[in-house]
Amino acid sequence: MDPDAVAKAFVEHYYSTFDANRTGLVSLYQEGSMLTFEGQKIQGSQNIVAKLTSLPFQQCKHNITTVDCQPSGPAGGMLVFVSGNLQLAGEQHALKFSQMFHLVSNQGNYYVFNDIFRLNYA
Amino acid sequence: MDPDAVAKAFVEHYYSTFDANRTGLVSLYQEGSMLTFEGQKIQGSQNIVAKLTSLPFQQCKHNITTVDCQPSGPAGGMLVFVSGNLQLAGEQHALKFSQMFHLVSNQGNYYVFNDIFRLNYA
Repeated sequence: MDPDAVAKAFVEHYYSTFDANRTGLVSLYQEGSMLTFEGQKIQGSQNIVAKLTSLPFQQCKHNITTVDCQPSGPAGGMLVFVSGNLQLAGEQHALKFSQMFHLVSNQGNYYVFNDIFRLNYA
Repeated sequence: MDPDAVAKAFVEHYYSTFDANRTGLVSLYQEGSMLTFEGQKIQGSQNIVAKLTSLPFQQCKHNITTVDCQPSGPAGGMLVFVSGNLQLAGEQHALKFSQMFHLVSNQGNYYVFNDIFRLNYA
């Protein structure tokens, strides 16, 4: 399968799930997964989703500007690098962000092993 | 060694070399290394440095805002995620950028296996 197509499909699935039902992201992570969110390090699917659901906003919409991907090595992993903006309900200006994911293959299914998120302040 | 310290040292070395003498970056990549620069994919240390030295500016200065790092898996690799701005000589406004590196260990020395760069347009 085309890696760029896999990356694009993952990104669409990830952010549409985030925007509709953040708790649904739990199945995309595993116990060894790591999130660094604005410099805060969190490990494990339950802890990661607890962080994401505790963010101080309810409704949001991610709009994706760019998606880049590269194979991460011989084990079949994939690095996905995203830039875009995040529109929060009731806020006039969207927030720019960059995020990277390391997708690792587990019996043909990818999960997120690494996730690093940063807002890009203007 | 503390991974955050390794990541910070790498980032300082990478950008100071970039700003002083871009051709000096060649030793940080190997033949299998990949760069995606603003969506353009380039492979191999020589091709990567040819791309970086052909960018349409001579003098520049990278200023780093954030550095995040995570281990990329059991093989000892490291993901380094950088945000910052790039000041070009003669330009009034700096350009914001995000960049990620996957550092892979080769007999105790790290080299850049993956490199993805994007400008973050305001």
